Parts: sequence; structure tokens; C-alpha cells
Amino acid sequence: MPTTDPAISLRDFQQLIRQMYLEKDVARGIDGTFMWLMEEVGELAAALREGTPDEQAAEFADVLAWLTTIANVAGVDLSAAVAEKYGEGCPGCGLLVCTCDDAEKP
Amino acid sequence: MPTTDPAISLRDFQQLIRQMYLEKDVARGIDGTFMWLMEEVGELAAALREGTPDEQAAEFADVLAWLTTIANVAGVDLSAAVAEKYGEGCPGCGLLVCTCDDAEKP
Repeated sequence: MPTTDPAISLRDFQQLIRQMYLEKDVARGIDGTFMWLMEEVGELAAALREGTPDEQAAEFADVLAWLTTIANVAGVDLSAAVAEKYGEGCPGCGLLVCTCDDAEKP
Repeated sequence: MPTTDPAISLRDFQQLIRQMYLEKDVARGIDGTFMWLMEEVGELAAALREGTPDEQAAEFADVLAWLTTIANVAGVDLSAAVAEKYGEGCPGCGLLVCTCDDAEKP
């Protein structure tokens, strides 16, 4: 049985990544860890362009993991961050179904 | 009370973002939506360099939201994706506390 519940909370995923990687991440530092995030973002772009669904899923997982690992180093709680920014509807228009003009930054 | 439970599951967050933005995202397409992700990644870099903790939290939330929104367009379940990739330990060394050489790609 996977360690990660398919209905895992963002908080528990952040803790999993913390346990798995924090020591290495702190040793490497935020800038070096951000470089890894960028590498994975590039791989995600490639997978979206020409990858299989499984390859795309793997790259999404990697980007999320590296984003989360940087959040751990920076001391940011992702669960609280998204609740604060998106918990009351779109940050731009305030609605649960966004009506912002597409040219505007939500 | 925020719509988003601070202990929100990744699955529920993906559904929240789907409800909020999917129609607009599909109309814009994956490439255009990926451009927004890149813009937010740049803002995250700036916030990590010189932003306050609150500013950093907001940028982490935005990057996560845009990543999630692209996953919706691509038809990828982030919760299943991270369970598959990270649910049994580090993808590189298989351990819950990673022992990969730092030069290796996990």
C-alpha cells in the first residue's frame, strides 16, 4: 500500500517532502533548489508537448514536489497559503467561478 | 469562514481550481496557460529574493494554482500523480529520507 493516501492533504504531502528532502535542500540552499525546480518545469513543458499521459503525470508530480520542497526551505505552509489566496474565491473577481477578463492578472 | 479547509486535500484543491478556472483555461489553451505559470514562477523567484513572508506565501499559492490549472487542462490527477511518484519513498533511492547523491537527479 502506498505511503501516500491518494486523498493526501497538501499539508501531509508537504510533510512527506520535508521528511524526504529537507536536510539536503537546506544544505543546497534556496537558489540551487530553485534551479532544480526550473529543470523540472522544462521537463513538464516537454512532456506537455510530446509526452504520454503517464510521462505528463510524472512531471507534474516532480514540479509539485520541488515547489513544495522550496516552500519547506522558505518556511511557507502551502496549505495555509492557498487557503488565504484562493479560499474565498478567485483573488481577482471574488467569485467561485472566475469572471476576470482574460487579459487581467487574476 | 474560508471555503478552503486549511487541511484541504490536493484533490479538493484541484477541484476548486477546476471550478474556478477550467472554462477560461480550456479557451486559452495549454500553451497560453503555461505562459501564466512562467510569469508566476518569475514572481516567486523575486519574492524569494526580496519579498516578505506574506508575499512569498502568495506567490507559492499562485504557482501551485497555475500548475493545478494546467493539470486540469491536461487531464492529470495531481493527487494520483504524486502518490505514484513519491508514495513509496524517494523515486531515486526508495527511502523515506532520501540518500541520493546531490548531483543525481532524484
